[in-house]
Amino acid sequence: MDSAPEEHGPGIMGPGRLEAFSDGVIAVIITIMVLELKAPHPLTWPGLVGLAPVMLSYVLSFLVVAVMWVNHHHIVRTLRRVDGRILWMNLHLLFWMSLIPFTTSLVGENHGSSLATCLYGLNLAACSLAFPGLTWEAWRQSKAGQASSRPPKWRGDIAVVLVYLSAAALSFVSVYISYVIYAAVPLLYFVPERQFKAARTA
Amino acid sequence: MDSAPEEHGPGIMGPGRLEAFSDGVIAVIITIMVLELKAPHPLTWPGLVGLAPVMLSYVLSFLVVAVMWVNHHHIVRTLRRVDGRILWMNLHLLFWMSLIPFTTSLVGENHGSSLATCLYGLNLAACSLAFPGLTWEAWRQSKAGQASSRPPKWRGDIAVVLVYLSAAALSFVSVYISYVIYAAVPLLYFVPERQFKAARTA
Amino acid sequence: MDSAPEEHGPGIMGPGRLEAFSDGVIAVIITIMVLELKAPHPLTWPGLVGLAPVMLSYVLSFLVVAVMWVNHHHIVRTLRRVDGRILWMNLHLLFWMSLIPFTTSLVGENHGSSLATCLYGLNLAACSLAFPGLTWEAWRQSKAGQASSRPPKWRGDIAVVLVYLSAAALSFVSVYISYVIYAAVPLLYFVPERQFKAARTA
Amino acid sequence: MDSAPEEHGPGIMGPGRLEAFSDGVIAVIITIMVLELKAPHPLTWPGLVGLAPVMLSYVLSFLVVAVMWVNHHHIVRTLRRVDGRILWMNLHLLFWMSLIPFTTSLVGENHGSSLATCLYGLNLAACSLAFPGLTWEAWRQSKAGQASSRPPKWRGDIAVVLVYLSAAALSFVSVYISYVIYAAVPLLYFVPERQFKAARTA
Repeated sequence: MDSAPEEHGPGIMGPGRLEAFSDGVIAVIITIMVLELKAPHPLTWPGLVGLAPVMLSYVLSFLVVAVMWVNHHHIVRTLRRVDGRILWMNLHLLFWMSLIPFTTSLVGENHGSSLATCLYGLNLAACSLAFPGLTWEAWRQSKAGQASSRPPKWRGDIAVVLVYLSAAALSFVSVYISYVIYAAVPLLYFVPERQFKAARTA
Repeated sequence: MDSAPEEHGPGIMGPGRLEAFSDGVIAVIITIMVLELKAPHPLTWPGLVGLAPVMLSYVLSFLVVAVMWVNHHHIVRTLRRVDGRILWMNLHLLFWMSLIPFTTSLVGENHGSSLATCLYGLNLAACSLAFPGLTWEAWRQSKAGQASSRPPKWRGDIAVVLVYLSAAALSFVSVYISYVIYAAVPLLYFVPERQFKAARTA
Repeated sequence: MDSAPEEHGPGIMGPGRLEAFSDGVIAVIITIMVLELKAPHPLTWPGLVGLAPVMLSYVLSFLVVAVMWVNHHHIVRTLRRVDGRILWMNLHLLFWMSLIPFTTSLVGENHGSSLATCLYGLNLAACSLAFPGLTWEAWRQSKAGQASSRPPKWRGDIAVVLVYLSAAALSFVSVYISYVIYAAVPLLYFVPERQFKAARTA
Repeated sequence: MDSAPEEHGPGIMGPGRLEAFSDGVIAVIITIMVLELKAPHPLTWPGLVGLAPVMLSYVLSFLVVAVMWVNHHHIVRTLRRVDGRILWMNLHLLFWMSLIPFTTSLVGENHGSSLATCLYGLNLAACSLAFPGLTWEAWRQSKAGQASSRPPKWRGDIAVVLVYLSAAALSFVSVYISYVIYAAVPLLYFVPERQFKAARTA
């Protein structure tokens, strides 16, 4: 806050500002999804049970957005400067993430629909597309990019895009397969974070 | 803002970032609840009086969320690092808090309903479940965790969960008893804060 | 961000955190009011003209909330610590401010209604009630509170409450008088700020 | 966060606080537009195709708001103090930006309407009006304003206003011409940013 202009390094803006704005957008995205949950009136047990698909899609999207937020933070915190390319990759990510409340209501209100399930998966795949580029840039800018021979993790990021695309296609076979994959990806994504943490603490 | 990557201690992310994101989510949660207050049209006195249950549930939830925000801040400010466990406990808290606008509209539109009152209480109990773990982690990480023999306050946090669960069950006896308990908990929660403050200032 | 726990002075939380959270809440309040502006469909000139009352109430509330935000910032930036009293006064302010989107839609959808105009004024009066206390606390905590004989500006803050209450009562005489007063108060409030600025720069 | 009051320079508030609040408002603006995207129920291909105008207006507004955010950040980061004039220019910008979700739904729900297209353009022109003044102030406050003979870029900012006004007028000839111009402006605006970056890095 109230930092002098000189503090910013070269580049369009400091990574901190990019992250603060992205955090604001993601905080709104993850929260306004609840507006799709309409209270049944009058409230009955069947009415509650009928909410299950909407609620499940809410839980899934909350998980997906939360894990994307963690990954985004991980990458941005290692950035040293933000140039036009990073800015556009970040806006690309935020654009597709901002559509998640829409595709979530799409699958919530049309549960069992292959088309809705497919569109939801395509939305997640489009979000994921932003990560390989951001990861690669962060790796290139980091000290590791100069000295270490450790390959950046963008190969895993590309795998995620392919997995989401496959799951989207599989929705025309069985939507249940698709949902299992949609939920499995964010859970698996967390594992490297924990290893990363362990490596750093050690 | 714009902090260099090295500033962050070990762990998945700095406590400041976790807090800033949580603050953003909680700020949206506490504010979008007002969207459930629909202006009666045309505006009449009976129409206004009919808004009372929705308005009361709004006041109660505003109080609950505000006190949870204060408690969350208290705990996170004493954290030194955020590992995967803290991150998941925090996301667990934010998930259940994000449902408060939904359960608030549930009790607002179905006032007097035991089922709605019970679900609201279960929502609050689920939120509260996050606090014992967070408190315990913060205590473990703090200097107090190494030197002091002062027990962490997680026992009180578990009591809160049990009180909310009891109040939820009591809604099938009388919803008024439940609401009195729902409102009493955040008010009582504030007392230790003031003692804590007094202890620190002394 | 990521500040060590020791940095915080005594009190429940640092003024910076109180301000960041309040800013988040106020940013959401000032923005979600636009959701009340429904696009007429099909779009016709009479339909647009019919939007005028809703649009005018939006402009007025935007002005009111913006000026309250500036005043809030002015006061909080001079705080040295946040104790329970300040926290509650701040939550009181945020609570009544969070109702502004509701009372704004009330006057927008019931234009010319004395009751709606009165309730809007009572809402603004309730918000204003928070300022004398906050101003007094800030003055008491500041160096000026110890050395200077300059009286704090809480007398002006109390005048604002009384003016809003009078304007609310006058809505049963003429709603136009009320609206002129509602709009005049934030505009007048800005003048002292400029003087304050001039005094500081000098 | 938690900065001492003395840290702030002269002026009504620090540029950092102005920027943080503006970021919050812009983050909400860019995100709540998605609430206009209603999931068709039942979901059919024609229903999806019918969403195209709403979706396209969403994409356009996301781009416009994102580029305005970048420009706003660029200007504010070079400010040294915020006086009353800057504060009002900033509120003027935020006010007109806050109407973008409304005019976006206007063109989305009335696609092909010259009136809607014109109002959208007038909204963008009104937003752009804030930039020449902000740019000029930032230039005047910066070191460049004292030493360099480099002219500030407010001339380009005024050109943008005129281009938006022309595009708004052209909507009565062809709405397609207007939309091409609306989309071209933010894309062109990005070019100077990259040059600016290049100049700084060199």
